[in-house]
Amino acid sequence: MDEKLADVSGGTSCSPETLSHYDESGRAHMVDVGAKPETRREAVAGAFVELSAEVLRALPQNPKGDPLAVARFAGIQAAKRTSELIPMCHPLMLSFVDVSAEVVEGGVRIEATAATVAGTGVEMEAMVAATIAALTVYDMTKALDKGIRIQEVVLLRKSGGKSGEYRRGQGDI
Amino acid sequence: MDEKLADVSGGTSCSPETLSHYDESGRAHMVDVGAKPETRREAVAGAFVELSAEVLRALPQNPKGDPLAVARFAGIQAAKRTSELIPMCHPLMLSFVDVSAEVVEGGVRIEATAATVAGTGVEMEAMVAATIAALTVYDMTKALDKGIRIQEVVLLRKSGGKSGEYRRGQGDI
Amino acid sequence: MDEKLADVSGGTSCSPETLSHYDESGRAHMVDVGAKPETRREAVAGAFVELSAEVLRALPQNPKGDPLAVARFAGIQAAKRTSELIPMCHPLMLSFVDVSAEVVEGGVRIEATAATVAGTGVEMEAMVAATIAALTVYDMTKALDKGIRIQEVVLLRKSGGKSGEYRRGQGDI
Amino acid sequence: MDEKLADVSGGTSCSPETLSHYDESGRAHMVDVGAKPETRREAVAGAFVELSAEVLRALPQNPKGDPLAVARFAGIQAAKRTSELIPMCHPLMLSFVDVSAEVVEGGVRIEATAATVAGTGVEMEAMVAATIAALTVYDMTKALDKGIRIQEVVLLRKSGGKSGEYRRGQGDI
Amino acid sequence: MDEKLADVSGGTSCSPETLSHYDESGRAHMVDVGAKPETRREAVAGAFVELSAEVLRALPQNPKGDPLAVARFAGIQAAKRTSELIPMCHPLMLSFVDVSAEVVEGGVRIEATAATVAGTGVEMEAMVAATIAALTVYDMTKALDKGIRIQEVVLLRKSGGKSGEYRRGQGDI
Amino acid sequence: MDEKLADVSGGTSCSPETLSHYDESGRAHMVDVGAKPETRREAVAGAFVELSAEVLRALPQNPKGDPLAVARFAGIQAAKRTSELIPMCHPLMLSFVDVSAEVVEGGVRIEATAATVAGTGVEMEAMVAATIAALTVYDMTKALDKGIRIQEVVLLRKSGGKSGEYRRGQGDI
Repeated sequence: MDEKLADVSGGTSCSPETLSHYDESGRAHMVDVGAKPETRREAVAGAFVELSAEVLRALPQNPKGDPLAVARFAGIQAAKRTSELIPMCHPLMLSFVDVSAEVVEGGVRIEATAATVAGTGVEMEAMVAATIAALTVYDMTKALDKGIRIQEVVLLRKSGGKSGEYRRGQGDI
Repeated sequence: MDEKLADVSGGTSCSPETLSHYDESGRAHMVDVGAKPETRREAVAGAFVELSAEVLRALPQNPKGDPLAVARFAGIQAAKRTSELIPMCHPLMLSFVDVSAEVVEGGVRIEATAATVAGTGVEMEAMVAATIAALTVYDMTKALDKGIRIQEVVLLRKSGGKSGEYRRGQGDI
Repeated sequence: MDEKLADVSGGTSCSPETLSHYDESGRAHMVDVGAKPETRREAVAGAFVELSAEVLRALPQNPKGDPLAVARFAGIQAAKRTSELIPMCHPLMLSFVDVSAEVVEGGVRIEATAATVAGTGVEMEAMVAATIAALTVYDMTKALDKGIRIQEVVLLRKSGGKSGEYRRGQGDI
Repeated sequence: MDEKLADVSGGTSCSPETLSHYDESGRAHMVDVGAKPETRREAVAGAFVELSAEVLRALPQNPKGDPLAVARFAGIQAAKRTSELIPMCHPLMLSFVDVSAEVVEGGVRIEATAATVAGTGVEMEAMVAATIAALTVYDMTKALDKGIRIQEVVLLRKSGGKSGEYRRGQGDI
Repeated sequence: MDEKLADVSGGTSCSPETLSHYDESGRAHMVDVGAKPETRREAVAGAFVELSAEVLRALPQNPKGDPLAVARFAGIQAAKRTSELIPMCHPLMLSFVDVSAEVVEGGVRIEATAATVAGTGVEMEAMVAATIAALTVYDMTKALDKGIRIQEVVLLRKSGGKSGEYRRGQGDI
Repeated sequence: MDEKLADVSGGTSCSPETLSHYDESGRAHMVDVGAKPETRREAVAGAFVELSAEVLRALPQNPKGDPLAVARFAGIQAAKRTSELIPMCHPLMLSFVDVSAEVVEGGVRIEATAATVAGTGVEMEAMVAATIAALTVYDMTKALDKGIRIQEVVLLRKSGGKSGEYRRGQGDI
């Protein structure tokens, strides 16, 4: 019946080697990261907001200011609050967050980078930043098209920590 | 140079009829919803967490307690904080939030319902609940499979408000 | 597998008639309060911080300012955030919060009052205010006595809503 | 020894007629606003960030995007959290927030508007929005000039509620 | 008239050796912990939710899912926000949180563990986790019995820091 | 189109050497502070609440408790949340916060000190604490005088970090 915010000792802020956040007896918990050496961790996540041609035409025509700037700010602010949103995530001191939002063929591509020097990774921080930025794009465009779809929220790469470098391949899933 | 949290007068909490949250002069803003009648609004959003067969087999075998319960709580808690996360969203008093998470073929299907009686809609509240629940499933399973992908974050249906009933069709996008 | 922030329709912000927040199929949820008439609701909760004679003598001797004022502010501020802390509680607009902290025989007695005009009650808001105020007294005095104990966190009375007036009796439990 | 989040019955969200938030016995409290009729309230606050000629020249030359947009978003987001920041303020549902930031002779002029339909006013919400926007301008420019000064944080006008219309005069203070 | 978030240098996050958080002149403050060595700190707190036999029988019969899981999540999430709730507590990076909730004779026993590597302790984090978990049990059961009582919120043990090991004795208070 | 929470490498938590938070291509960002050595940083900010003679006479006459204590607590609590309020600020672990509020000729003088051991400074934390304390004084007195003005929100001094010691001169601006 225990629930633990695991001492995120080895992998990313929220990931042991089995089903994450569950201890040997099957109780959800938070990994204890207190004994882990603090190293530089970085993670990059992506998301894609699928938009109709109509909305894509409307986006850049805005006379004053950039509609995507709102999304970038929202993503940065949300990354700082990851541990409030994702139950088993440890609080950590982000040393860097970077969100980009770019109009591409068929929609807006979001990319979010997070970094820290800690005993736990920042994979979830990058995922939260990308997702909230995508939801903000959705919010700014939904009056024009209710069928908008957020797709491909994925981890693109990460470095640092015991599990080492990860880079999403072309053929993943 | 104005930025407004628009008086969300007519549509959902964050959506005028053109590019949302931009006024006639192209400034991002928040719609003024103060003059709108308060009516019952409801919205349902969905998300899909694509998981490998390996992870799907691991999920239900957890001896004590339900890994998806964490995701549901996270979604409910996040819905209440939508206006802190999405810049142009109005604060509102949710009268109901419901998140379901179900193992299906190829992954976990999330569905989130939000309701209120207000001058503005709860579309973004449902979208935030579905997304944070999906990210929590990702967080609980990412140690087993880094290639996990969140897909199909969409509005499934909504009712109430000036723009009336919406129901996502089979052929949308 | 549903988890709902129940439409808090009838009782307090978080209480149907059976095991609270569980629907007919046994899923935890949040009651839908959208259809309920908004009426005046009030609740009073109490807590007692058991302190040794040594600490009680130290408390009022503070030359500048009142150590209990910190506890009162903490209680008021916490009451406003009840729905962020208690998962199945609805957000609501408190119209009033009042916390008192008084040195009595054997400790400090806390009493917290919360009120609103809403479709759901404020029992949990009063309980959270009393508890956080008590924890703050503990925090201010714990260097002098680690054996401090918070006791008797209870609902003292409530009014408004379907379940009507409640007043804790002398012989309760 | 009571501390109350006053039932903000009559004036602005935080103002009885005497020293605000103090009851007849001299205890800080929060006014009870539960019995007050809900009417349209609006408030406008201003702030001025005094900047050197050097910084003012640097501001508009930024090749990509508007440095003042960050300030506007920060102000809007902060307004929604006024009751978390100002102890005796009631939570309320803002129906509108608008922040402008404009380069003028000698600095950047901020103006923030807040509106609601409630039993309490939005004076503090406008003041918080203006102030946090000004602090964000300070944060964006402080590397160029540590002597930056925020001046003239004032209420410009307000309407609605018992105390009626207020408009800051030329000769105020 | 100073109010300080004390540099929590020696004891727990919120405790100098006299009346905590008060400086030599009697002003409430926050201890400066900046010069303290970072060491492993751990604290365990307990709480007891006194329930009638009727409620205790209802608790385990819930067909789908565990009512106590909600309480555990709430406790973990609250522990991360301790410095927002308890005024003189320092923000700190929890490396571990663990909350258990167990049906025992006469009620539900909560135990919460918090750990960090820091210049200040985690006593208040454990106390907040235990208390919010207990309040959540109260919230889930209050429809069945308004006389529910939270008792015995105490520090069970702590280790690390200048004040060394503490273990609550049988005979405490 | 990138927006970054800059790795706050050198100066204060939010200040590179040019227009802060903008990279070489003109995109707003957050400096990466991950590679910076952690050193002791301290900053002191001031603010002045201009009050009429009438309000100043009313302030100290409050029979029970100190109206300025509320302002001090509000300032301390707000300092801990600086990175939630100021978009490009890094989260950091404050080791100390101190706010004073003093009745002087013509108003109330606020002074706020913040300290940390980190790779980034605490200038904004001190500025936020001073400003929110000033706004709280405004809130407590605004019923007596709507013409109240907050003036002279400035950095008084700072130490630590690459940019070294700063002390505001008599003749600044």
